[in-house]
Parts: sequence; C-alpha cells; structure tokens
Amino acid sequence: MNIAMLGSGFIGRFYADSLQGYRSRDKIVSIYSRREESAKKFAADYKVAFSTTNMEEAINRPEVEVVCISLPNNLHEEAVMLCCKHKKAVITTKPLGRNAAEAKRMLEAVEKAGIFNGYLEDLVYTPKFLKAHESVKNGALGRILWAKSRETHPGPHSDWFWDIEQAGGGCILDLGCHCVEITRTYIGKDIKPVEVMCWADTQVKPIDAEDHAIGLVKYENGAIGQFEVSWTFRGGLDLRDEVMGTEGTIWVNSFLRTGFEMFTTGKGADYVAEKAESNSGWLFPVGDELNELGYNHMFADMFNAMEQGVNPKETFYDGYVVNAILDAAYKSAKTKQWEPVQLDIWRGRTGVTKDSHLQEYDAENYLVKEEVTHYGAKKVILKSKMTGKISEKTLS
Amino acid sequence: MNIAMLGSGFIGRFYADSLQGYRSRDKIVSIYSRREESAKKFAADYKVAFSTTNMEEAINRPEVEVVCISLPNNLHEEAVMLCCKHKKAVITTKPLGRNAAEAKRMLEAVEKAGIFNGYLEDLVYTPKFLKAHESVKNGALGRILWAKSRETHPGPHSDWFWDIEQAGGGCILDLGCHCVEITRTYIGKDIKPVEVMCWADTQVKPIDAEDHAIGLVKYENGAIGQFEVSWTFRGGLDLRDEVMGTEGTIWVNSFLRTGFEMFTTGKGADYVAEKAESNSGWLFPVGDELNELGYNHMFADMFNAMEQGVNPKETFYDGYVVNAILDAAYKSAKTKQWEPVQLDIWRGRTGVTKDSHLQEYDAENYLVKEEVTHYGAKKVILKSKMTGKISEKTLS
Amino acid sequence: MNIAMLGSGFIGRFYADSLQGYRSRDKIVSIYSRREESAKKFAADYKVAFSTTNMEEAINRPEVEVVCISLPNNLHEEAVMLCCKHKKAVITTKPLGRNAAEAKRMLEAVEKAGIFNGYLEDLVYTPKFLKAHESVKNGALGRILWAKSRETHPGPHSDWFWDIEQAGGGCILDLGCHCVEITRTYIGKDIKPVEVMCWADTQVKPIDAEDHAIGLVKYENGAIGQFEVSWTFRGGLDLRDEVMGTEGTIWVNSFLRTGFEMFTTGKGADYVAEKAESNSGWLFPVGDELNELGYNHMFADMFNAMEQGVNPKETFYDGYVVNAILDAAYKSAKTKQWEPVQLDIWRGRTGVTKDSHLQEYDAENYLVKEEVTHYGAKKVILKSKMTGKISEKTLS
Amino acid sequence: MNIAMLGSGFIGRFYADSLQGYRSRDKIVSIYSRREESAKKFAADYKVAFSTTNMEEAINRPEVEVVCISLPNNLHEEAVMLCCKHKKAVITTKPLGRNAAEAKRMLEAVEKAGIFNGYLEDLVYTPKFLKAHESVKNGALGRILWAKSRETHPGPHSDWFWDIEQAGGGCILDLGCHCVEITRTYIGKDIKPVEVMCWADTQVKPIDAEDHAIGLVKYENGAIGQFEVSWTFRGGLDLRDEVMGTEGTIWVNSFLRTGFEMFTTGKGADYVAEKAESNSGWLFPVGDELNELGYNHMFADMFNAMEQGVNPKETFYDGYVVNAILDAAYKSAKTKQWEPVQLDIWRGRTGVTKDSHLQEYDAENYLVKEEVTHYGAKKVILKSKMTGKISEKTLS
Repeated sequence: MNIAMLGSGFIGRFYADSLQGYRSRDKIVSIYSRREESAKKFAADYKVAFSTTNMEEAINRPEVEVVCISLPNNLHEEAVMLCCKHKKAVITTKPLGRNAAEAKRMLEAVEKAGIFNGYLEDLVYTPKFLKAHESVKNGALGRILWAKSRETHPGPHSDWFWDIEQAGGGCILDLGCHCVEITRTYIGKDIKPVEVMCWADTQVKPIDAEDHAIGLVKYENGAIGQFEVSWTFRGGLDLRDEVMGTEGTIWVNSFLRTGFEMFTTGKGADYVAEKAESNSGWLFPVGDELNELGYNHMFADMFNAMEQGVNPKETFYDGYVVNAILDAAYKSAKTKQWEPVQLDIWRGRTGVTKDSHLQEYDAENYLVKEEVTHYGAKKVILKSKMTGKISEKTLS
Repeated sequence: MNIAMLGSGFIGRFYADSLQGYRSRDKIVSIYSRREESAKKFAADYKVAFSTTNMEEAINRPEVEVVCISLPNNLHEEAVMLCCKHKKAVITTKPLGRNAAEAKRMLEAVEKAGIFNGYLEDLVYTPKFLKAHESVKNGALGRILWAKSRETHPGPHSDWFWDIEQAGGGCILDLGCHCVEITRTYIGKDIKPVEVMCWADTQVKPIDAEDHAIGLVKYENGAIGQFEVSWTFRGGLDLRDEVMGTEGTIWVNSFLRTGFEMFTTGKGADYVAEKAESNSGWLFPVGDELNELGYNHMFADMFNAMEQGVNPKETFYDGYVVNAILDAAYKSAKTKQWEPVQLDIWRGRTGVTKDSHLQEYDAENYLVKEEVTHYGAKKVILKSKMTGKISEKTLS
Repeated sequence: MNIAMLGSGFIGRFYADSLQGYRSRDKIVSIYSRREESAKKFAADYKVAFSTTNMEEAINRPEVEVVCISLPNNLHEEAVMLCCKHKKAVITTKPLGRNAAEAKRMLEAVEKAGIFNGYLEDLVYTPKFLKAHESVKNGALGRILWAKSRETHPGPHSDWFWDIEQAGGGCILDLGCHCVEITRTYIGKDIKPVEVMCWADTQVKPIDAEDHAIGLVKYENGAIGQFEVSWTFRGGLDLRDEVMGTEGTIWVNSFLRTGFEMFTTGKGADYVAEKAESNSGWLFPVGDELNELGYNHMFADMFNAMEQGVNPKETFYDGYVVNAILDAAYKSAKTKQWEPVQLDIWRGRTGVTKDSHLQEYDAENYLVKEEVTHYGAKKVILKSKMTGKISEKTLS
Repeated sequence: MNIAMLGSGFIGRFYADSLQGYRSRDKIVSIYSRREESAKKFAADYKVAFSTTNMEEAINRPEVEVVCISLPNNLHEEAVMLCCKHKKAVITTKPLGRNAAEAKRMLEAVEKAGIFNGYLEDLVYTPKFLKAHESVKNGALGRILWAKSRETHPGPHSDWFWDIEQAGGGCILDLGCHCVEITRTYIGKDIKPVEVMCWADTQVKPIDAEDHAIGLVKYENGAIGQFEVSWTFRGGLDLRDEVMGTEGTIWVNSFLRTGFEMFTTGKGADYVAEKAESNSGWLFPVGDELNELGYNHMFADMFNAMEQGVNPKETFYDGYVVNAILDAAYKSAKTKQWEPVQLDIWRGRTGVTKDSHLQEYDAENYLVKEEVTHYGAKKVILKSKMTGKISEKTLS
C-alpha cells in the first residue's frame, strides 16, 4: 500500500513506525507537514520519496493509494475534503472531528465521494481488547451491564492539544474518544447511546479546556458506559478497561501493569515508555508499544479491508457516533443535566429494551441470590411474586 | 471493655471475632438477637454469659460498658435511643441511619445524653488505608483532585438487605456509605461536600432497590469523590481505592489482589474469603480478613478513645454526614440532576475555594507542561498571560 | 507479660513496637544494651523502667517473666545461658545460633533448665503464611512437591551483620534461616531434611561472607525446599514464597506487591518501608509492617503458649534444625557436593518414603495426562504397565 | 518466503499460524507428516499445495526456499541431514538435538553444507524479552549477577514428549532449553558457561524421564543462570524471568499475569490459553499468544536475516551450546556433582574473570553499604582495607 502521510508529529511518527514495520509491503510515499523542516526530517527518517508543505500536493500524486491524516483536529476536515476531491482512500486519526457537525460533514463527504474511509481508533485493536471482546461476544460475561475505560496521563506532548481552538476541547476530546469507542464496542456497536452525564473541570493546568472529566453514557438497553480521563494523572499512562456482565468480569491493564517490572538506579536507563515520568526507580515498560497500543492490528485491518473491498471495523461513521456522544458530554458538563445524544445518522438497532431482572425460581418466587454458606449449606434468598416479600431458605 | 452485642448475624459475628480476638481485655457480656435460637447459639459460640430477645434487657445491665449495634438498618434508631435512656456508650455499624433524618435524630440524642458514640466505618481503619491516608496528609500526593472508592460483590448474605423497608435502600446505602467516608477522608473531613450526581439502576436482581450505582460528590474545594457500588459484580469482593493528587497517585486493592494467589483443583479447599464465588481454580484469599478489613484497628481506636475520654476518629457526626451525602445521591438518581447535600449540622470549614490552576513560569507565561523528550531535551509548553496563546519551547 | 529486652538495635525496636502495641498487657520492664547511650534511649522511647549495660542484671530482676534476645548472633549463647541460670523464660531472635553446635548447646541447656523457650521466626507467623499453611494442611494443594522461599534486599542495616565473626555467616545465615523454616513448614515439620546443595558467592560486597546464595534442601519424602537469598538485590525487600503440590499452587508476596501502590514526585514523602530504596517514583508500601511481617501473631503465640503452659509453634528445637540445615548448606557451598544434614536430635518421623508416581488408569495402563483439547474432546495419555509404551487415546 | 513444514502437530500449527499470519509474504508450500491423515488435514487448514508422508519429498521441491522442522526431537537430525543434502535453508524447533553430540553433528553438517540455519528459540524473541534485554545491554541493571527463567505447566500435549526415547529426556530438555538460552542471553552469549548443578526427579508422572528439575549454571564471569522447570505445575503455564544486576532488577511475567484478568461462571467461555487448566473462575488469558510467545519476531528475524544474507540471532551454534549445558545438567542430576560444560566448539570470549567486589570508599576503606536512616541521616558501613574490620559511620 502506498501511503501519503499528512502530519509529521508524535502520532505521525508512531503510525509510520507501525506502517512500515509490520506488514512488509506498505510504504509512505509522500509526506506533508506544515513546517518544511519537519517534512524533510520525516522524509529522511522514514525514507519517504516526496515531501511538501502543500497538503493537496501530498495527496494528489498518482502513486498515492491511501491518505493517512495525523494532523491537529482542526485540520481534519480540510484534509478529508481534499481526499474526496481527489478520490483517495482516507484514514484519519482520532477524534474524527472537533464536534459531531464536523464529523457529519466528513462522513457525508466520503460517502458521497465513494471513497474508502477508516477511523484510526487504535485502542479497539489492541491484542488484549480483541481477545477480551471475543470473549464478550462469545457470552463469557453474560449480559453486559457496565463497561468502563480509563485513560489518564500527565498531558499530551504537542502544543496544539493545549489550544482549545485547534484541539476543539481538552482531555474529553483527546482521551474520551478512545474510552467511548472501547466501552461502546463492549456494550455492542448496534446499541444506541441515549444520554450522557459528565463532570469536567480544569483543576491543574492553566488552560481553557478541561483537564479532568468523568462521564456516564446510558445505552438503550440499560447498559452504562463510563469514561475517566485526565491530563493531570501522575505516574505514567494509565490505560485500563473494566467490564461487568451478569456472568463475569474483565479487567484489562494495557500499559502500566502488563507483567514487566524493572527497578533501576538510573545508570544507563533511557526511553522507557510513552508518557513515563521517570527513568529510575520502579518502572513498568511495555514490551512492544506499537503492538500493545493496537497500531499493528489496526493498520492490518484497514489495509486488508481496502484490499478486499469491504469496510474496516472502524469507519468515519464510528467516528461520527463518538463525536456525537462527546458533544453530549460537553453539553452536560455545562448544563449539569443528562443530555441526549443527537444522532441524525444512526445505523444500528432501535427500540431495544432492557432485559428483565426477574429471575424465575419457582411458580411463587423470583430468585434473589443463591450461595453456599460457611458451613457448606446451600442458601437461597427469594422474593414472592405475589407479595414482594423477601425470604431466606436453606436447602439441604 | 464489657460489651453488649445487639445482633447475632454475619456482621455481629465478624465484630465478635475481632472484639474478643485482638485486644486481650475486651469481652462480650450480653447478646441480644431477635430470635432466641440465634441469641443462644451466639452466646455459646462466643461464651457470652447473658443472652436475650429483649433489646433493652441486653443493654441495661450493670456490667455493660458499651453497646455494639449490629442490627438491620431499620433498628438502629430504636437501639440508640435505648442506649441514651440507659446512658450506655454506643457504637453502631454502618450506615448510621437509613437516611439523614434518622441519623440526625440519633446524633442529637447521643449528644444530648452525653454518651460516647462511635461510628463503625471499618474501611477507614484498614492498615492500607491508615498508611495511605498518612502519606496523603504528609503531602506525598500534593493537592488531592479526585478520590474514588469501589465496592462491588455478588450481593449481601442476609435477607433483610434485599428488603427496601428494613434496609432503607440498596447497594448505595449498603456499600456507598463505605466509599463516601473513604473518599471524604482522603479529600479532607473538614471540606464540605456540596453536591452529588448519581446514576442508579436495578439491572439484575428482582428487587425494588438499586443493585448498581455510580456517584460523584463535589467538594467545596473542587475535589471530586467517586463511588462505584454494586450487588451484581461477579468474581468476589472487589474493594479498591484510587486517589489522584497534583504530585502523586495511590492505588489500594484491599481484597482481591493482595499478594496472595492460590490455584487449587478443589480437593480439600474450604472457606476462602468473604464473598468468594468459588473454591477451585485461581483464588485470591486475604491473609487476615479481620485485620485487612479494619476491624481490629477500628475497635482499638474506639476503646482507646473511650478509655481516654476523647472522641474516636469516627463518630455519629460522621455517620450523619455520610447519610446526608447518600440522601443527595438517591435524590439525584431520581431527578437526574446534581443535588445539593443538605447539612443542617456542619462542623468543618466553610467558604473554601478552589486552588488556582495557574502555575507561574516567568513574568510573561504560565507553565502548562514540562517534559523530557525522547532525544533528551527538556521541553516546556507555555501559555502567555497576556494573550492566552500556547507555545512550545525547547531548552538546551 | 513483663519482658526483659536484650539488645536495642533495629530488630529490638521492631519487636518492642509489636510487643507493646498489639496485646495490651505486655510491657518491657528492663533493657540491656552494650552501649549505655543506646540503653537509655531505648528506655526513654519505650518507657522502660530499668536500663543497664550489664546483661545479667537485665535478666535477673524479680519482675522479669520472659527474656527477649535481640542481640547479634555471637551473643545469643551467653544470653541464653544466663536465662538458664536464672530460670527465666527465653525467646530468641533468628538464627538461634551461628551454627548447629551452638544451637544444640542452647537447646540442651534450656531443656535441662526446664525453661520456656521460643524461637522468634516471625515469617511463619505472617497472616498470609498462616492462611496459606492452613490451606496446605487442609489438602488444597495435594501432596507438596516443592516449596521455595526468597528473601533478598540491598543488605542489613547494622554493622555487625557484615562481620563474619559476630554474625557467623552472611546472607545464608541472616536470610536463609527464614526461608528454610518457611519451606520446612510447608513440607511438614515432621519430615526429615536429608541433604543440601548450595551455591554461594560474594559477588558485590567487599566482605568475607557470602552476599548471594541459592540452596536446595531434599526431604525424606522426596519434597524439595529451595531458598534464594541475597544482600545485593536492588528494588527493596523481596519476600516471596511459592509452593507446588499435586493439586495446586500458592504464590505469596509478603512485601513488594501487596495491593498498595503509590507514585509520588517526592514532595512530602517520608519513611516508606523497611529497606525501600527510594522515596519517589512508584513505591510499594506495606499497610502494617509489624503485622504483615508476623511479629504480632508471633508474640501472641509465644505469650499465649507461656500462659497456657504449652510449647509455642516455634521452639529452640526448630532453631536447632534450621541451623543444622544451614550448616549443611555452608559445607555444600565449599565442597560443591550435596551434604547430609547432621541431626543428632530429631523428633519427627523417620523412614518416610516417597509417594508413588504411578497413577492407575485401568488394569493395563497408568495415567500420564488427561486434558481437554481445543476442539472439546477429552484426551488421555497412557503408559502401559507391561511394556512401558506411551500411547494417546481420545475419548468421546 | 516459500516454506516446507515438517511436522503437523501442536507446535507445527502454532508456527504455521504465525508464519502465514504475520509478514504477509510467507507461505507454506509443502507439508510432511508421518501420518497421511495429518498431512492432509494440515494442508487443507493452511492451504498448502503439496502434502506428503515422505520427508525428503517435502524438502526437495524446487519452490521450497526454507525448511521448518517441527518434528519430535529424535527426528531432527535426519531432517537436517536431508536439508544439507538438498542445500535447503533450515530452521529447527527447540531443542536442537536430544544431546550435544547430535547437535554438534547437525551444526557441523549445516556449516559444511553452507546452508542458512536458524534455531527456533522463540522465548528470546518475545516483545518483553527484547525490551528487557535491550535495557540490560544499555546498562540499566549494571553488572548482571543472576538470571533465572522458570517454565512450568501441567505437561505437554503430544504423546511423544512422554517417551524418553523419542524426546531424549523430560522437562529439562523440553523446557530447560528455553530457560538456559534466556538466562544465557541476559548474562551475555559471549560468556562461557562453565559448570552446572542440577536436581531432577520424577515426582508425579508414571514416566522414566524427570518431571521436575532445578538447575544452576555458572558462567566464567561468576554470574549464575538458574532454571526451574516442571511438568507437574498446576494453574496453567507459568513463564517468568528474573534478572538481578548491581544496579537493578527485572521481573517479566510472560503468560499468567500480563494485565488481562477475566472471571467467568463458565457459560460461553471457550479456548482461553495454551495449557490453561479451566474455562471458569478467574482466568488470565494472553492478548495475542503468537506475539507474546515470540513467534512473530522470531520468524521475522529468521527471514530478514535470510534475505539479507546474514545470520539470525539464534543459529544451530546456539542450539548446540544449549544442548551442551543440558547434557551437563543431566549428568549432574545423576552424579550429584557440579559437572563441567563440555564445549568442543566455543566461539565466545575465554578467560573472563569475575569483576572485583571491592568498592573503593576512601584510601583506607572499602564501601560496604550506604543508606539513609529513618531519621534522615546518611549512614555508611565501611571495611578497612588494612585490618578488614567493619565499622559504621553516620554522615551529616
């Protein structure tokens, strides 16, 4: 696959490492950066034949088969529209837009242009997520009740993230987009997100956007998605998911506690991990960041899908749904109300109702709980269907 | 210390094990249970001289120095009033009341009667909490931004918990009371809780009360307390706290991951831990539950305080504050609004304002972030005081 | 219990904290230290009525009921002999002697004098060990095959440890005594240790004794005890046990990973834990060191035993067996051979043979392995009793 | 790369999944199996054009560029010799031979034939190992003192492992080969292994080979490698490495504790992980086994090396060194002595001596230890160069 890369910053480089490292037949053939120096440096580092500070020029080259957007949020729409104009397949970093209106325009444009579009939500492509999600789909956890995703760290690397105009928001937009898509996938991407409650504050950083937020997303089937995001966390990059179902639980730690622990007095230690705060003491590196953060499986899915002429797992439509949920979160943080998710475009199921919580025990009773006591007896707690009265019964 | 125990159920037995096991000079001298058979069994098991089904009789005996209430929530008030009548020191299991109105009446009654009163919130007495809280007080975490406590398990053992009339509520009242006092203590017990947002639902159990809830408590200084509680969790008793401060982080796991891991095919295994769901496979026992759950240090504090004529760390006043917060949570779950915490009685600070998030860098700029890059350079991200513009600067 | 404390150093203070803190009726009434200044400081800190630099004087006071020896290894024998002379109950820190000859003389002396004697091996009294050992005794792990204990840290605090004359050895004696008694208890204290293989070296420290060693202890029933000890470990105090049985596994982490994790930039942090190497970065404190290291349960067992006129769980006899095993380890490290454990005194079982490893499958075959394959079939691997031939058989 | 696969069993399939899944341009073009049914099934599953029960036929096809040997140990030599005959590049599963004599013959044959040869020791290619080893090489741990690798599980899947004639040994050969190469690489592949001490026993299984063993490998520079291997472990696949250096520590858990925890009641759960013992309760799956076990990076290194005409990281020479170490281990288990490693071929350094453990403090003293006391003072423990006397000194 011949790729035009737009953007040469932190995430562009992460992408390039994965793109050129994993499948052995993908190649960045064109690089655009706003600053000529950066474009040239990137071209040199990754052996890219063509570099430019003119975005359209980077896209509109005959050898380019797909455009990878790794630009600040406020430039996504412009880049996408150029891809539409030149009918180039496009894959875009997260979040898709700064808000649902932007995202919707991009979604409608790529679909009208009929071009392949992929949404680069890497965290639903991590090996752990893929395995966990498979277990969830297989029913190992029963009915999903709650899914939480937490991403917190000491703040992003590039300056534009801290500028609300370019970024469109703070940690909700930057990190919440991951958490929302992770939890939405656990709950079921065909289940409609209904309303959102969110607390957000600027507790530590001298910025206009929020640096800490917690949100709840209610789904039509009664399941709850939760996100915890912050740019004020101390200790590294905390990336954890938790899922509760009627039959089980999943806990995933994707970064800080993965079975790799190192103590060093600091002599000789160098780069440890993304957003690590120290090079001495107890450190918790990740074996292979590109793989553990999902980049490899994400690009493989994107390119395999392109080659097979099908949609990848994550498209602009998913990016749009995520933006719509985050819009509701931002609104809720201001109104202090649960805010409805505005979804002009919805392609999943509708009218799904909550499953009954009334578990049959016998003709007269529902089962509240069954347990084995200390002394080995089986005990049930029942609720009378007729009277609603709770009673306890010890079985032999 | 000579103790009258009211209640012979699950928690009464846990208390008794600790009371008679830890300090070697405390003794239960009188036991009341609603059912004669239970009273007698308890008396036999713990070698208690006097047993009765008459509550007042259990309290009003000359040798009784302190009354320990381990009764269903709806009986706390009656029991407390009898202690007031007979001027007996009283310690009560959590929550203090089914609501703040009950709690307030109990608080006012014990203070009017001038009797020693203790609130048995064991989870702020666990060895880990005590050590963590000491670090927080010493400033190891800087300014506290957020404190979360999570308690979830597959549901309580006794039938009365599941009856909303006796219990007064579901998992918010049963488990949230722990979480609220834990997080409140981390944030500072003198900081006023201002308002609460809560989601609650009955997702699994055939009951009238909630079996799953998540809540946020905003404090006057801008800090956020969070509780996650459920009676539908699968996998055992999940008891975790997390605290974020400007200078650090604390993660405490009090039950399921404490450095003790056992795999067994199931031959020969017996009681493993409170609310464990299985006796085979990978199990995670706790070394000494009474100690790890805080009972020992809690009773030591209570009795030492009594002997020294001072207040214990946790009094009815704390129980009342917790109930007031939970009342707001219940209200919020219904109104879907942030609900103010109604505190007719408040003995902490008032008018505390949020600390500034503007960190000085130099005369012209605030400091947004400082980091060391991959290539070893020190980079700062600044915000102009004048223009608000964000810029990046790489230092040598 | 009125206690005479001999020794005012690191371990003496740890003991004193536990002795006067746990049971509320034990009191140090007399303190001996070699240096007057230390004796006085200790007396002041712990409110001890009598302090002296004359060991016999500290022991031979009418109010003293029990003598607690917390002295360097080379002074244990002298102290024990004085206790015998004055018929005072005696409890001694680990190891009992510098070698089995010393230990044997002490054992024979206390038994001849008829005095209560306790061996202060705290690590078989930790809450986790007590619970784990109970599971082992209940059969949760089946037949015990192997038990390992590891204690490594960056080296002891006091100077005398580093002097081979006073200490009698290096980390084998200092730390191996713990590991040997832990693993011996898991395997069964009535099972005879037969022979020892040990590697030891001085890899890092400029001392005469070993600073790193690994040893294997073979027991009469074929079980293997393993110790890993070092004074050169970086990262804190590593204290882990592992046990393998035919039906299960136990992993215990007693210090560095106990469910308490703290990150701090270092502002405000102070004493974190015994032998922690840093006050910033990721730290792993222990909730309550005295309890987690077993001191509380150890002294409770000692004093309860004294009061009931029975032997405590650990006596001088156990200390002697441990010394005999360590003697064999030292010898093996020199001869590079498996060395027999010389036990002139042995009170356990003898002639125990290894359990058969031939598990019956049917009349013709032994069962090698049984498993469920990927595709859900049950597969057995068998060995013919007649021919010894291995075969595979898939069951429905 | 066009591959001929010899062997269609458990490991052959693991290899095939990785070979055809990772790099997108490698293809198995020929499959040999001893049983026709297996060969055909494999060919169908992996879309292999040619299948046969004639080994030479599978190798000697024009399109075959490299032969991958996944056969029982006793067939490696025959297969390698055929590759030499037909001048086909060859990569072989571990261990290389059943003993060093076989391995030496294979090594000499491939070098004489001038063919590319790779030794498929996947566990030095896991992402965690690669990262850990890089830190070690960068000096983060200082001088390496000890490296341990542990691999234990409930026993292999295929029948031939249990037959000492085909396998050549038990768990030492099957699992120890991994551990030895892991620890050797941490210590330095150019450092000569000198002698080995090993305990081995058949504790549980009705077989002739050992099912449990522990070994120590001494290197010329004084560093110690340790292996712990068993086919009797209960609880899954335990795969852990530990490394101690003068400046740091590394702990790697490659399988059972990698930040992925799942509890399930068992409804709906299916294949969890290699050698997992259960499908319910607490389970610890690995996100992507092929990647976490090193297969992907191993084959990438092999084929990249072939394409570049250089040696891969692991060659037959490494396989030979490992076999030589294991031979010494087997001998030691019988003679109960430290046995020298017989290395007729050695291409690393020789005459390396142990680093000095005498750390200079000042003209008169060596430094034994430096620490900060509870009360904040800096304390040093010194050893006089002249007298050898140990002393303590508290600095301001």
